[in-house]
Amino acid sequence: MPSPRIALAQIDTRVGDVDANARAVLDWSRRAAEAGADLVVFPEMTLTGYPIEDLALRASFRRGAEAALQSTAAALATEGLGNLAVLVGTVGEKSVTPVDAPGAPEGPRRPTNQAVLLQHGQVQVRYDKHHLPNYGVFDEYRIFAAGDDVCVIDVAGRRVGVVVCEDIWQDGGPVSQMDENEVSLLVVLNASPYEEGKGHQRVELAARRAHEVEAPVAYVNLVGAQDDLVFDGGSFVIATDGTVVARAPQFVEHLLVWDLLGDDDAPAVGTIAPPLDPDEEVYRALVTGLRGYVSKNGFRSVVFGMSGGIDSALVAAIAADAIGGENVVGVSMPSVYSSQHSRDDAADLAERIGADYRVQPISAMVEAFERELPLDGLAEENLQARMRGVILMALSNSEGHLVLAPGNKTELAVGYSTIYGDAVGGFAPIKDVDKSRVWALARWRNHAAIDGVFGPDEIPPIPESSITKPPSAELRPGQVDQDSLPPYDLLDEVLDAYVEHAEGRAELLARGFDPDVVDKVLTLVDRAEWKRRQYPPGTKVTALAFGRDRRLPITTRWREP
Amino acid sequence: MPSPRIALAQIDTRVGDVDANARAVLDWSRRAAEAGADLVVFPEMTLTGYPIEDLALRASFRRGAEAALQSTAAALATEGLGNLAVLVGTVGEKSVTPVDAPGAPEGPRRPTNQAVLLQHGQVQVRYDKHHLPNYGVFDEYRIFAAGDDVCVIDVAGRRVGVVVCEDIWQDGGPVSQMDENEVSLLVVLNASPYEEGKGHQRVELAARRAHEVEAPVAYVNLVGAQDDLVFDGGSFVIATDGTVVARAPQFVEHLLVWDLLGDDDAPAVGTIAPPLDPDEEVYRALVTGLRGYVSKNGFRSVVFGMSGGIDSALVAAIAADAIGGENVVGVSMPSVYSSQHSRDDAADLAERIGADYRVQPISAMVEAFERELPLDGLAEENLQARMRGVILMALSNSEGHLVLAPGNKTELAVGYSTIYGDAVGGFAPIKDVDKSRVWALARWRNHAAIDGVFGPDEIPPIPESSITKPPSAELRPGQVDQDSLPPYDLLDEVLDAYVEHAEGRAELLARGFDPDVVDKVLTLVDRAEWKRRQYPPGTKVTALAFGRDRRLPITTRWREP
Repeated sequence: MPSPRIALAQIDTRVGDVDANARAVLDWSRRAAEAGADLVVFPEMTLTGYPIEDLALRASFRRGAEAALQSTAAALATEGLGNLAVLVGTVGEKSVTPVDAPGAPEGPRRPTNQAVLLQHGQVQVRYDKHHLPNYGVFDEYRIFAAGDDVCVIDVAGRRVGVVVCEDIWQDGGPVSQMDENEVSLLVVLNASPYEEGKGHQRVELAARRAHEVEAPVAYVNLVGAQDDLVFDGGSFVIATDGTVVARAPQFVEHLLVWDLLGDDDAPAVGTIAPPLDPDEEVYRALVTGLRGYVSKNGFRSVVFGMSGGIDSALVAAIAADAIGGENVVGVSMPSVYSSQHSRDDAADLAERIGADYRVQPISAMVEAFERELPLDGLAEENLQARMRGVILMALSNSEGHLVLAPGNKTELAVGYSTIYGDAVGGFAPIKDVDKSRVWALARWRNHAAIDGVFGPDEIPPIPESSITKPPSAELRPGQVDQDSLPPYDLLDEVLDAYVEHAEGRAELLARGFDPDVVDKVLTLVDRAEWKRRQYPPGTKVTALAFGRDRRLPITTRWREP
Repeated sequence: MPSPRIALAQIDTRVGDVDANARAVLDWSRRAAEAGADLVVFPEMTLTGYPIEDLALRASFRRGAEAALQSTAAALATEGLGNLAVLVGTVGEKSVTPVDAPGAPEGPRRPTNQAVLLQHGQVQVRYDKHHLPNYGVFDEYRIFAAGDDVCVIDVAGRRVGVVVCEDIWQDGGPVSQMDENEVSLLVVLNASPYEEGKGHQRVELAARRAHEVEAPVAYVNLVGAQDDLVFDGGSFVIATDGTVVARAPQFVEHLLVWDLLGDDDAPAVGTIAPPLDPDEEVYRALVTGLRGYVSKNGFRSVVFGMSGGIDSALVAAIAADAIGGENVVGVSMPSVYSSQHSRDDAADLAERIGADYRVQPISAMVEAFERELPLDGLAEENLQARMRGVILMALSNSEGHLVLAPGNKTELAVGYSTIYGDAVGGFAPIKDVDKSRVWALARWRNHAAIDGVFGPDEIPPIPESSITKPPSAELRPGQVDQDSLPPYDLLDEVLDAYVEHAEGRAELLARGFDPDVVDKVLTLVDRAEWKRRQYPPGTKVTALAFGRDRRLPITTRWREP
């Protein structure tokens, strides 16, 4: 029996752009065929993009996806690729008992998260994902009907099991039913969002399933970014004994090719990409996230306030790496409280990354406003931040740049951010990065320049003084962050426990944190959370300070007792 | 056997404020006992408020709710109410198989949506809701573990079945298992959000379940507002034959008392509140929504731009009815394009409702800005709207008012709203009301004044010319909405089909709409949806234009073909 050659097409897709996604399937299938593959496997929901959210509930969208699926099957054959087995993901449909409830998806057909085998010009097999994740960033159970059939296809005389993403995260799923079918390979179509350290989890899990079915597991993951999710790729093949025998690099499109010789044979053509250093992995995830948001929203350039501080400096470096320094507009918007060193650092930064640098003082605007409507205290501080927001949005409207909000996770968590002021922006590149990590990433990026990671003879992008000086919002004379906050390393530790790990006050005290620090931080976070949830109007709100995509009520009165 | 007296306590609760909710349980239990009740039933999740979203996932919150439950049981007995059967809702806990997935709720205990019988100073019975809705505004399946036991309690010698809200919306739920138990009454604890016409659906459904168990059904609903949800109350009792035998009024707290004589006997003390006229029902829902948002967020007053147009006029009337005209700050912010009649109408409106009226011209601020950064076209129009947003937020920061955004649903759907400009605000009272309905509600409210619905000798709050003049944003000389939009009645019809009923272009054409109108509207909506989703940063976005709480990806490229 010949050894089937398997290709994992780790590609980037765009939600809703079924035509472009279908073209990508044709293009990468051709490459797979040229590499001699018998089977090419694409990521979860290839044709529709992922996640499609409630778009799946529109019948006209499902019709469009189905038409693209059929025409892709035909086009593959027309182009001489009819013998190649092509596994793609898309939105399917399934008849279910009508749900007798208002607002529930109507009618007898509901969407499914589907893997489809295309071969010989036709749809050959359809498989509906069983396990629909419904936690964290996932909302699939809300949208899709679950499948209940097991899927085993034939590839060059070998039996290949097919499952989708969450199906392997749940014990007792379709893989456990597959055991008896004696598959020679299990393939998994994934859209697994990036989290730090998740690569190890995926490999461990795949190893467990490989052991379960007594066959290798081929795991293909989406790459790129969609909205607030980053997909890191890192597709891999694991042997029956749990050894990684092939791995694609992270954060780039890649065709990983590997020969299924025998159950335990070494691969013929598989390569193993080396893992990334943790700071590099996070930095590249941020670059990927920003690049995806800019390009998928149809922008070419970004604009943001370049204050000379560490946050906007890191954002500038990320933006330059994502879309090129020449597409970065940095605006210094000094007030009467801004220091000369801040302006010098901003100008230095812009020059290092090749940004379009502008200076737009706000003093005259703020004075004109206050002549009409005198303000003081917090209202006056916020006015400065809001006038800067108006300037950035005016430049966006006039010149077409996407506005970036350079706030970091720590600052957002404790509420050091003005609503409609420095919070203005379509994308906040470092909103998931705490202040301690901001400094670590800035240092890593400068070292990477010296090490030639991003090309030869690069100068470090971030001015040293932006990294070393004490952080300040410069909204009052002589103001520095540490006047009103615990040291950032301690603050970030408390925030991580309270916000990310949902520990209560009692647990925090039991871990030995100073009660004054705990109470100060909890008060700041609860208040910031409450203020942030009041605006914008009446929508369900993703609570940044309570971790990524936790959903919380707006008007809760609950405070940690 | 004596006839048990049943009290339905239709109360308002506040999410997270377990102490205040527990006090309300004590207070209304006392009233029920004074009315001679044997059983008092409270709405779903009484102690925690509804919906608590991911707050349920915090162990410290669940501990707090459990402590309040135990102390409420004890306090009832201490106050001499130990013999009264008290059914309250709260968050429970349940051991489940650990979920082997990252981000999933950790550990062996997960929250449940629970009904609890308190009597004789103790927790007597706990029931976990079976059916967890996961569509529209509901996210319960994400949060709670489902129950699987049936609950029948004894009240004065009669068997009473207990279920929670969605349990009766699904065929084959706990009610179908209850059939064999021969209950004498089925009670349902609800937090059923208001939708127009939903009252009829609830009654029909309850009638079906009454027929199923061959017993009356007592349906108690939450009243008040939480975040973007309004709960209308309207609790009722339905006899075995489907007749409504008692009904509470909508939008007010109420104790509905009724005697369970025999299975088919007429009620002894039940009263039947008359149904509201459709416009009145919607208007009172809007008043309830705004009042709840203001008070539960700890505000006492509101501020918004009073332009003299119909939208801000209706918002002013609603605000005055919700929190009193003296707590309404209306700011006229004329530009060089503002007409004198607009200013006159705004002043007239403020006087009619007794608002704090101010005039804050924006011309000098806009000119000062443009001297520094010259703008034209859309950027200049948006600058005017944004300067008004900065003024309103400055007043909010200085004086503590909640900013309201007076945009209507039609305007938001087609994108006639400036991000960080007129979209600024913590609450948008008429975001779910289309333009045609805005006029209808304004007319209804003026007629209600003449009819004395809100008290004797009231003058109509809304100036007639605000209702009759052609609407204009007044951002350019001579601009009126109908220059660039189809007539509003036609526009609203197309929007309703496209947005609320998720019809595609093909369906709209098949219904006979003019292709030019359809294409114009779909282009506007898709573009507005896309722009709105770009801002604010990186969060999952509730898509207003696609109906209430539909969730859509941000960067989709999909357009109706």
